[in-house]
Amino acid sequence: MSSKPMRQQMEEYILDLQDKIVAALENLDPNAPAFKRDSWVRAQGGKGISCVFAMPEALSVDAAAPVSVLEKAGVNISIVHGSLPPAAIKQMRVEHTSIPYDPESTATLPFFAAGISLVIHPRSPHAPTVHANYRYFEITEPNAGEGAQGKVIAWWFGGGCDLTPSYLYEEDAVHFHKTIKDACDPYGPAIYPAFKKWCDEYFYIPHRQESRGIGGIFFDDLCEQKHQRLDDDAVRPRNAEDIFEFVKHAGNAFIPSYIPILERRMSMLSTAEERRWQLIRRGRYVEFNLVYDRGTKFGLATPGARIESILMSLPETARWEYMSEMGTEEGSKEAKLMEVVKKPRQWA
Amino acid sequence: MSSKPMRQQMEEYILDLQDKIVAALENLDPNAPAFKRDSWVRAQGGKGISCVFAMPEALSVDAAAPVSVLEKAGVNISIVHGSLPPAAIKQMRVEHTSIPYDPESTATLPFFAAGISLVIHPRSPHAPTVHANYRYFEITEPNAGEGAQGKVIAWWFGGGCDLTPSYLYEEDAVHFHKTIKDACDPYGPAIYPAFKKWCDEYFYIPHRQESRGIGGIFFDDLCEQKHQRLDDDAVRPRNAEDIFEFVKHAGNAFIPSYIPILERRMSMLSTAEERRWQLIRRGRYVEFNLVYDRGTKFGLATPGARIESILMSLPETARWEYMSEMGTEEGSKEAKLMEVVKKPRQWA
Repeated sequence: MSSKPMRQQMEEYILDLQDKIVAALENLDPNAPAFKRDSWVRAQGGKGISCVFAMPEALSVDAAAPVSVLEKAGVNISIVHGSLPPAAIKQMRVEHTSIPYDPESTATLPFFAAGISLVIHPRSPHAPTVHANYRYFEITEPNAGEGAQGKVIAWWFGGGCDLTPSYLYEEDAVHFHKTIKDACDPYGPAIYPAFKKWCDEYFYIPHRQESRGIGGIFFDDLCEQKHQRLDDDAVRPRNAEDIFEFVKHAGNAFIPSYIPILERRMSMLSTAEERRWQLIRRGRYVEFNLVYDRGTKFGLATPGARIESILMSLPETARWEYMSEMGTEEGSKEAKLMEVVKKPRQWA
Repeated sequence: MSSKPMRQQMEEYILDLQDKIVAALENLDPNAPAFKRDSWVRAQGGKGISCVFAMPEALSVDAAAPVSVLEKAGVNISIVHGSLPPAAIKQMRVEHTSIPYDPESTATLPFFAAGISLVIHPRSPHAPTVHANYRYFEITEPNAGEGAQGKVIAWWFGGGCDLTPSYLYEEDAVHFHKTIKDACDPYGPAIYPAFKKWCDEYFYIPHRQESRGIGGIFFDDLCEQKHQRLDDDAVRPRNAEDIFEFVKHAGNAFIPSYIPILERRMSMLSTAEERRWQLIRRGRYVEFNLVYDRGTKFGLATPGARIESILMSLPETARWEYMSEMGTEEGSKEAKLMEVVKKPRQWA
């Protein structure tokens, strides 16, 4: 057990994980340009490192052989702090009753947040898009004085990862879910099923009545208090160190859950029709992120937010067809994907 | 002055305008496939005709010479009726005080709406996207009995049109605005300036701090009552017949405002870089429509709404680059467009 404050432990962890993930992606495609590293500082308090892959000059979208493994990717970390307005405090108090709340008060509370967030859109229509995010949030007592950190009055972890294929390869879906499940299971058998279900519910596009992809896990508000998605008597990590161990286990599962899939799909040739379908599916990704994703909506509504970071999750190219026939032909490869986004399946 | 009910007059007008606009677009490109006409009926009450242009097989996005004038276009009319829930009645009453409102009541009121809505995305990066929409809304007394129509208790017109170029041709912007202004001016000199300003305010993307395009006109709630955007003593159409005449004048100005611009830009050759910029700008179009457009948001949140019609406004292809350098180089053609979307100009 570390004697370092959790915020420092988490910061060190996400810095290291970011390095490892970027290195794993770069190793897959040594001839492609390296990720662009971009450090930034937030005037209101905080810093981050964006690692971004893009080849905007490669516009030849229907090339049968991919010109690079990735089309667009971002692996970002951010470590920020600031003041929570009363409205945000009120909302967070629903899940974190240790936060004092006086409905009459207009006072703010100091917060700290550290997280890693990534979205990877490969070029081949056969290679799935992936998203992952792990974060630690802390609220402290105010008025600790110049430079000093107030006593922690609430903290929690959140995160998850999910896969979005354009074409369904069942062995990929099984591998992805099984790797995540194996990372969760040592922390209690109820963890994976609860967070898998939460993921299916979260990444849902109501107006299309379909999921964004084939899911993974999603969780929030994980702390020592009662949890809305876990039975009181379920085996689960219950203190900060154990929960941090679980989060690290899930975060460390990212590379083994995704890179082998990317490796076996990245060089597959594709047709113009397959590319077309991939871009239609990326249109759905855009719809989910712009219309429903809480993080994106919150970011867009925050004055002074870094729009380029918030919208980095969007694919390089997306496509919308009116009444497209793609995906509607029974027995087609496209319809096979539609089946599992219309009706989430148990993969592990 | 017609003795026909306004709902019938509006229905006849939009049917005719739809035909004329589709014919004008088809005449420009006789070798392209015709628009696909699609009649639909709404189970809850109503009907519509969608006229849609698409060539989904034409994926060669960087072809220097456009394979067709249009890339994606929809010219739709809809004539629907139904029941307004109390929440909608409450909101509409703000601008239409003739609507009875009892805060305790859970009763609905019958409504009727007829409108034409179009979005045209040409293929050439030099040809601007255009959007137009003219609509008539009516609320009637309930309980008029089987098949009978209750007394009209509130009615209004809304609409407008706006231009979204990727490259700015000042003469196009002037022509578009001047044609609309000439259609407005006979109804009072305050009309165009008020509705031009409203358009600039409406089609604004706060998170980008830029307008979707170079504007046009936008108006709503135009009826015999006081209007929020027009001085009480301003010259303006004040009764249903005069307002309908104004709306027809504006609607009829669509073809002369846009077709000549499309004609002079549609065959211009373009580079891969120009196409890339066009797709980045189309990404902004998607951002506005999915995040801010009231009609789209309302549609997506309406159970049973026809998603294909609502999202028909989206371009066939859109593009997102992280920290794109396009548009940032001073003096470039892209920067010239950015100037006018950052700071709306008076064009007429």
